[in-house]
Amino acid sequence: MKKPVSNNVIRRLPRYLRKLEELENSGITRLSSGEFAKILGSTSSQIRQDLNAFGGFGQQGYGYHVPDLRAEIARILGMDRGHQAVLIGVGNIGKALLEKFSFNDCGVQLTAAFDVKQELIGTDQQGVPVWSIDALPEYLALHPTDIAVLCVPKSQAMPMAELLTEQGIDAIWNFTNVDVVKPSSQMMVENVHFSDSLLSLSYFLAEHQDEKRRLKNRS
Amino acid sequence: MKKPVSNNVIRRLPRYLRKLEELENSGITRLSSGEFAKILGSTSSQIRQDLNAFGGFGQQGYGYHVPDLRAEIARILGMDRGHQAVLIGVGNIGKALLEKFSFNDCGVQLTAAFDVKQELIGTDQQGVPVWSIDALPEYLALHPTDIAVLCVPKSQAMPMAELLTEQGIDAIWNFTNVDVVKPSSQMMVENVHFSDSLLSLSYFLAEHQDEKRRLKNRS
Repeated sequence: MKKPVSNNVIRRLPRYLRKLEELENSGITRLSSGEFAKILGSTSSQIRQDLNAFGGFGQQGYGYHVPDLRAEIARILGMDRGHQAVLIGVGNIGKALLEKFSFNDCGVQLTAAFDVKQELIGTDQQGVPVWSIDALPEYLALHPTDIAVLCVPKSQAMPMAELLTEQGIDAIWNFTNVDVVKPSSQMMVENVHFSDSLLSLSYFLAEHQDEKRRLKNRS
Repeated sequence: MKKPVSNNVIRRLPRYLRKLEELENSGITRLSSGEFAKILGSTSSQIRQDLNAFGGFGQQGYGYHVPDLRAEIARILGMDRGHQAVLIGVGNIGKALLEKFSFNDCGVQLTAAFDVKQELIGTDQQGVPVWSIDALPEYLALHPTDIAVLCVPKSQAMPMAELLTEQGIDAIWNFTNVDVVKPSSQMMVENVHFSDSLLSLSYFLAEHQDEKRRLKNRS
């Protein structure tokens, strides 16, 4: 029986992976947890603890082998599963994902996009065919799909999530800013809330400005 | 002396705020921590602990007053600071933010956007004027700005971050997928890495599929 790994650890792994890819690309093959901590702005005990949750991968006196550790983390993150995805809603954010985001680099194959706009239907966006939204149920029935990337307008978010649930989709990558499923739902949802990110920045900025003011008043 | 609040608590506050706004909009004024926990899919002890980091706000036997708690969290998140922002790079992601994202709802005033494309310069995007990137240093000198929303291509990310640092900008909301500053920098950076979000989803999906397989093999 595997011990469940905390959400916070999972959230740190993609960043570890990004850094390891950079290191590997610059030809570095060996790394101590101290060096890795420095690069990440973290601590070596944090990193060791996080990686130990999956059995550890370092060797006493050697540290980490960068390509191996990268491959292990990629595997843990399910990047070798061949997850299939469709994108629903080719507006600005949908287009930005199609044009700039590499699904392949995450081990995800984006097989099709769907929209209501006649001028988009039948076109090819960066190698991804755009279908009519009406064809979605049939498409999903024929093409086993794991992830729906949801980029529809707010008003369409809930009905679309219901349709995806009916079609047996397991996971929604949700850009709609609407909480599309109930907490009781089996559907896995990863919400991308831009506001959450901006508000966290706003908090740290406010703290920082208070600190600057305190220092100024003291001098 | 204020006790520093953990990053994890800060990261949860924007979600609390969103839910409180929804509750307030549906006319609910009073809430127990148990009810709030149920809505959030969290626990009441977690919520009490998080809010206690800022001095609590609940009353024994009453619970939380929704509008007051919402206002308190908004204040904690710096939404009343009148933070000023500029957006740099009006490509797909920049356009998506200009068209769909409400900076005002986060207490941030977006005063201008900047790009290199002649056809965009001088236009108005959802009420936000687009200036030539060449005018950025002068603009920042004249208009005190707290946050730069960075949506430029990867190759421009580092030089732009350096320019912003020189101009005394405190915070970057970073959509470039490039780590734009060294850990030692004073600049506050909130990275929006779409891949981190998709990879977390990929992990939970892989776990979920393993579990389904285990259950199937058992039956």
